[in-house]
Amino acid sequence: MFSGQSDWGLKVRVWVERGGRKVLGRGRVELLGLIDQHHSISAAAKRMRMSYRRAWSLVRDINEAAGEPLVEVTTGGPGGGGAALTRRGRKAVAEYHRLVRRLTRAAGPFSRPPSRD
Amino acid sequence: MFSGQSDWGLKVRVWVERGGRKVLGRGRVELLGLIDQHHSISAAAKRMRMSYRRAWSLVRDINEAAGEPLVEVTTGGPGGGGAALTRRGRKAVAEYHRLVRRLTRAAGPFSRPPSRD
Repeated sequence: MFSGQSDWGLKVRVWVERGGRKVLGRGRVELLGLIDQHHSISAAAKRMRMSYRRAWSLVRDINEAAGEPLVEVTTGGPGGGGAALTRRGRKAVAEYHRLVRRLTRAAGPFSRPPSRD
Repeated sequence: MFSGQSDWGLKVRVWVERGGRKVLGRGRVELLGLIDQHHSISAAAKRMRMSYRRAWSLVRDINEAAGEPLVEVTTGGPGGGGAALTRRGRKAVAEYHRLVRRLTRAAGPFSRPPSRD
């Protein structure tokens, strides 16, 4: 019946945990993707309309929860430091996207993009 | 990498909406299942350690959001009234369970049961 009428819809939210602690959800993966693109937490934060402080704290939490750095931060220097995904970070982001695609396919025609976590 | 170590896990939450309003999530479906089993909102509420008032308000919200009754309530009478799922209610519950099974399968070996909504 969910598919019978167009005003019915399905929402799916997915997140990855390690040891019961959240590592990645949609918002975190978006942040990592932007860090990868801009090599800067500050630029990524701006794109997400998020404070630098919040983005920093998310990055720290992601790294801690993952048990290894997914984001590597270099502070100081002439450019004011930068940030980049580690190999594991890239892998985690790619795997998360694959998971979401798989779930979206499985949910069928009613599914909408997962809501921001 | 999520599957490489046993302490990594995936959580999936799914809910059904109509016109942007939540109709069914895991908790609501559990409530409907218990109403179907006990023919009583009060007994279903007790099983879920939920107040009668809260269960009643959920049932009303489910029916309103669905745009048609999924639960039929009969008040008064010698037995103090009762409650039962309508045909559409049963169908919605079955379809929700099918969806969750499909998503769990798609999530692969790391998925855990969806968290309560």
